[in-house]
Amino acid sequence: MSISKPYLLFLGDVKDELAAKTAHGVLDWRPEWCLGQITLPGCKAHTTLSEMSLTDATEAGAKTMVIGCVNAGGILPDHWIETIVDALNHGLDIAAGLHIELGSIPAIAEAAAKNNRKLHDLRFTDLTFPTGKGDKRSGKRLLTVGTDCSVGKKYSALALQKGLADRNISSDFCATGQTGILIAERGVAIDSVVSDFISGAAEHISPATKDDHWDVIEGQGALHHPSFAGVSLGLLHGSQPDAFVVCHEPTRSTMRGVSAPIPSIQDVIDLTIQLGRLTNPDIRCVGLAINTMMLSENHAKNLIEELGEAHKLPATDPVRFGTDPIIDHICAEFKLV
Amino acid sequence: MSISKPYLLFLGDVKDELAAKTAHGVLDWRPEWCLGQITLPGCKAHTTLSEMSLTDATEAGAKTMVIGCVNAGGILPDHWIETIVDALNHGLDIAAGLHIELGSIPAIAEAAAKNNRKLHDLRFTDLTFPTGKGDKRSGKRLLTVGTDCSVGKKYSALALQKGLADRNISSDFCATGQTGILIAERGVAIDSVVSDFISGAAEHISPATKDDHWDVIEGQGALHHPSFAGVSLGLLHGSQPDAFVVCHEPTRSTMRGVSAPIPSIQDVIDLTIQLGRLTNPDIRCVGLAINTMMLSENHAKNLIEELGEAHKLPATDPVRFGTDPIIDHICAEFKLV
Repeated sequence: MSISKPYLLFLGDVKDELAAKTAHGVLDWRPEWCLGQITLPGCKAHTTLSEMSLTDATEAGAKTMVIGCVNAGGILPDHWIETIVDALNHGLDIAAGLHIELGSIPAIAEAAAKNNRKLHDLRFTDLTFPTGKGDKRSGKRLLTVGTDCSVGKKYSALALQKGLADRNISSDFCATGQTGILIAERGVAIDSVVSDFISGAAEHISPATKDDHWDVIEGQGALHHPSFAGVSLGLLHGSQPDAFVVCHEPTRSTMRGVSAPIPSIQDVIDLTIQLGRLTNPDIRCVGLAINTMMLSENHAKNLIEELGEAHKLPATDPVRFGTDPIIDHICAEFKLV
Repeated sequence: MSISKPYLLFLGDVKDELAAKTAHGVLDWRPEWCLGQITLPGCKAHTTLSEMSLTDATEAGAKTMVIGCVNAGGILPDHWIETIVDALNHGLDIAAGLHIELGSIPAIAEAAAKNNRKLHDLRFTDLTFPTGKGDKRSGKRLLTVGTDCSVGKKYSALALQKGLADRNISSDFCATGQTGILIAERGVAIDSVVSDFISGAAEHISPATKDDHWDVIEGQGALHHPSFAGVSLGLLHGSQPDAFVVCHEPTRSTMRGVSAPIPSIQDVIDLTIQLGRLTNPDIRCVGLAINTMMLSENHAKNLIEELGEAHKLPATDPVRFGTDPIIDHICAEFKLV
């Protein structure tokens, strides 16, 4: 996958920052690829980049407009199409992680053809997958799981992979969603795979490898989420992780988009081990990644200490305070370095 | 969905009867729609219908050739295409439950257009689904689950719905796979839905209904199967069943297509209740459906009695011995009739 850089990040008119998590993800992890943002009237999300018109952006050298936001269901609202067509007419490629292909919209397909521009559909793949087999593969795998959707599974996986790499432990970040794919420039959007092949696709994402290599796999959804538990279970079975980290956002009371309550961290540890044992009997929890974005530094540190002690596991906010406690624990548990 | 009848059942050259379960399902439940079978050299499956050439079948009045078999992965082997094209040239429509659309194969698309014939892709739907919500819906739901794939979940659901209807209890059979769809002439192939929408599609399949109406939902896969557990969990959450029946085939030692062992019936009861409670806290097991096809009648009766007593649940082979024990129990548990 090769997407021309730098990027102009499109935020549409989404109603909160979480809906722009693709834009934030790319900007946080690949700032050198990002030039500016473009919003529509009423947009409630924003990045630290300057707002740019399409003319400003192309004059500044932008090569691709990234659709950095989603509405519920991953559908492209009609009123975003005009800006996408306009961007193509300005000479930009488009990258998007929608559940429909950009080229299936006639106005976009025509503008892309007329301007000889590329359309990158991050959620689609040319790959076909077999059904999952569940056989043990060589190599080590770490999966991030969550008490809910959108709690930091991708950020934690990226940070943990960086933490392993910093200690010269052979490792890869394995992207399973559109933002991760945009950051890693490879991967498979697991929520877009035909459901018969979820675990087969997950097996493809982290194939057999060297015994001392770690694949750090971005989790999706949550086993306790009534919308997405099936995806999470297929990914768990296919990933057959040796280790997992539970990601938690402590200020939520109900799961995102539904009325179901947030499970406890212990519930998530127990269920992940219970179900994960089907494809890896040695699965174990190696840490807690607490997303403390909404908390003061003092409050965050106290909560992390409290949760770590309560669960007898290393705890941290991988983004705010680094991954050392968890990486130390992984090294000790698996006798690394 | 309206497929012209009667049918010629295509069995290809599959290697066992289970691979022809679509043909067997349609013939067992809709014999009045089925005229004959057609096989390729080396076919190990067969029905009770006469083998017919395409010419014989069309002269006898066949209107549609149903692809009644699958190979692993639901792919159409190249050497089946010639017969399909030939059938179109003989004036037959085609119905198939593959993971690819018949019309995506140029030779088939051309022959269908030339002969003005219909291509029915049972696994594809024009519907789009929202993500699942998990909110409680009115009406009652029964889901069949299994200790493995291909153990009788569809047959049990069909038989149980018939059993309810025979007692004048308002009920529908809800098809979730290609064979069920062919039998019911409606439904959604849940294993072909994009994985983000599994539970949303399941919610669509059994919408809110009258309080005393029962939707009997065909299960898919198995919660303990490393290939398909994600599909099974999404279907369980979206179906939010009040009652479930465990289907079991007692002669298997490993799960179909993989090396994982068969779970115990009690394991399946426990896990289905544990996970199903997320969307229906009152979920309960109402019976065991034992597929005794491979056993003598005496052996079958003894085993059914033994398993029923061991689990303190009504047990039967719904196809061989009828559904009365389970229907009696449902009526008592839910105070029906």
